[in-house]
Amino acid sequence: MTRTLTILGATGSIGRSTADVVLAHRDELRVEAVVGGHDAEALAQTARKLGARFAALADEKGGAALKEALSGSGIGSGAGAAAVSEAAERDADVVLAAISGTAGLRPTEAALKPGRRIALANKESLVCAGEAFMAETRRLGVEILPVDSEHNALDQALAAGRNGDVEKAIITATGGPFRTWSRERIAAASPAEASAHPVWSMGSKINIDSATLMNKGLELIEAHHLFGLEAERLDVLVHPEAIVHGLVQWSDGAVTAGLALPDMRVPIANALRHHERLVMPLPRLDLASIGRLSFEEADEARFPCLALARAALRAGGAMPTILNAANEIAVAAFMAGKIGFYAISEKVEFVCSSFSGRRLAAPATISDALAIDEEARDAARQLIPK
Amino acid sequence: MTRTLTILGATGSIGRSTADVVLAHRDELRVEAVVGGHDAEALAQTARKLGARFAALADEKGGAALKEALSGSGIGSGAGAAAVSEAAERDADVVLAAISGTAGLRPTEAALKPGRRIALANKESLVCAGEAFMAETRRLGVEILPVDSEHNALDQALAAGRNGDVEKAIITATGGPFRTWSRERIAAASPAEASAHPVWSMGSKINIDSATLMNKGLELIEAHHLFGLEAERLDVLVHPEAIVHGLVQWSDGAVTAGLALPDMRVPIANALRHHERLVMPLPRLDLASIGRLSFEEADEARFPCLALARAALRAGGAMPTILNAANEIAVAAFMAGKIGFYAISEKVEFVCSSFSGRRLAAPATISDALAIDEEARDAARQLIPK
Repeated sequence: MTRTLTILGATGSIGRSTADVVLAHRDELRVEAVVGGHDAEALAQTARKLGARFAALADEKGGAALKEALSGSGIGSGAGAAAVSEAAERDADVVLAAISGTAGLRPTEAALKPGRRIALANKESLVCAGEAFMAETRRLGVEILPVDSEHNALDQALAAGRNGDVEKAIITATGGPFRTWSRERIAAASPAEASAHPVWSMGSKINIDSATLMNKGLELIEAHHLFGLEAERLDVLVHPEAIVHGLVQWSDGAVTAGLALPDMRVPIANALRHHERLVMPLPRLDLASIGRLSFEEADEARFPCLALARAALRAGGAMPTILNAANEIAVAAFMAGKIGFYAISEKVEFVCSSFSGRRLAAPATISDALAIDEEARDAARQLIPK
Repeated sequence: MTRTLTILGATGSIGRSTADVVLAHRDELRVEAVVGGHDAEALAQTARKLGARFAALADEKGGAALKEALSGSGIGSGAGAAAVSEAAERDADVVLAAISGTAGLRPTEAALKPGRRIALANKESLVCAGEAFMAETRRLGVEILPVDSEHNALDQALAAGRNGDVEKAIITATGGPFRTWSRERIAAASPAEASAHPVWSMGSKINIDSATLMNKGLELIEAHHLFGLEAERLDVLVHPEAIVHGLVQWSDGAVTAGLALPDMRVPIANALRHHERLVMPLPRLDLASIGRLSFEEADEARFPCLALARAALRAGGAMPTILNAANEIAVAAFMAGKIGFYAISEKVEFVCSSFSGRRLAAPATISDALAIDEEARDAARQLIPK
């Protein structure tokens, strides 16, 4: 039984892993549309390789190059926001939403259609606009399956029971490059040192979030929306080997867990399953050869971003949106060498505090979320040295 | 919503842990009947403590003592096989079947009633008479939930998908007291050394099975019947900390696992759940404080019983029944100091070989199973020095 798939963010890291999964399952998955950002050449290549029917580039200026690169292929194309929306709205059973950042909000929203599944890799849909996004998915009857390895693991571990019986859902963190560093040494860390992720190869902004543990804080916020679990029932556990990705502690004392080798193709394939799981030709997890798994508590003293994210989740309302926006600006400033490592959490905390008196409600629409996001970014920019 | 429960094997180790679970959930669980073996005093005490309506002692000679010990309580009683059957057949939503050994076969069979759940702790129902037992449960529409920590963990881990997508279901072994011993040292081990289980406190026969790893072999046979998985899809992994009890490797490369602190009350409570899990007032698994989990392959060269059990499972037919019977006799002989440690596997192998030419079909009834069991025990007894 063939299912149709549209890939938003087809030329990024998740998109490329998704292409691998599709190529291993040509009989089960047919690609309807692919969406890329700026690289017309790479998008055309992906569209041809996957046999897509339509390709859309977000960057309007790349439209001619895309058309040229697709000439003779019979693959339709377009460029700009309208073309991206068209791609997201075309008939498809599953849309893999992997455009990163707030740029992914509108296309992911456009992909919400009754009866459709969204394999969700765009964090901002949950972190920046979680209430609005989830309300819309419920209203339309859209199924959301998380692609992130931690949430995908939780999704599988949660199959063992009912939400009401969950005492705690726990996502794991590698601990990042500074797991064993002292606070003093971390304080002086360079952007290059912070970008060296021990396990996953990701984009550099995500790598910094992994070094501050803000990524885990954001994942707690995502888990809250995905699984309907309050802050008190969500936790983080440091696990350097990145084999156990998520655990669920149940009321009877039992724990279920989702494990996998750290390879994004595993959760992607899982999120693309239909009645049956896909068969993935990948190395299998061999715990005997790995030998040892280790676990430790997350240290919020050395990694204050985690505490800030937890506080934003507890505060609710627009606070996660504000936190995320401030973090984006602070991380960019750190990467540009304008502020030190611990200034990231200081700026985020300052921005969150400055908004806290207003007790802003959770954004009710994506537009509302984007407006608050922009306001918080502006506030954060004020704090960055020129 | 109160459910009624009957406990077969109420005075044994599993029965006592079950009593703990019941006492923590008086509003949810009402005890209909309790069954014990020989200890009238202990059974009467359990019946009073749990507020049971009926108590049955397997040992007919203890009937008067039981009646005496229950006088004034209003609790009915009986002794002997008919009384045990009566207890098993009385109206109850759930029967916890925890009489150990082949002695548990008939009472467990008597407990099979349409619409009822059996929380199964009697290994022999599966190891000695698996085909017959499971066919009967299917015919009657009986739900079987395993109480054994490994199978209970697998049951939860399997909730994440369909049987057809399971590549491998893996049960863990602590490795027993001889995990790090050389073959030479193991060969000279005493019964006392073999009885020292590193994690669980169990009966002594089970401890020897844990030292030979035969217990894991028998658990593979149980898993085969419980979950409908062939020998090729079942495996054992050594994990000394006994925290991860079972793992399921899926076709997409994902793995789900069941974990818990090694406390039988956790899987018992899980097997007694209704729509909701029970809330157990027990310490929670804290992986950060445990710090490290280790895994290694099971060494069939030092632990040949595991290979013998796998071979019996692959051979099918009556071979698991024969293996189990021969093992019982050989273990008893080892415990009595009549044979050495590696003679256990040698005797089992010899008995299995001597029956293999007959290609006996899987016993179709419990009676057939008991007949083959007796025949194999006789054959094994021939091999034991007087």
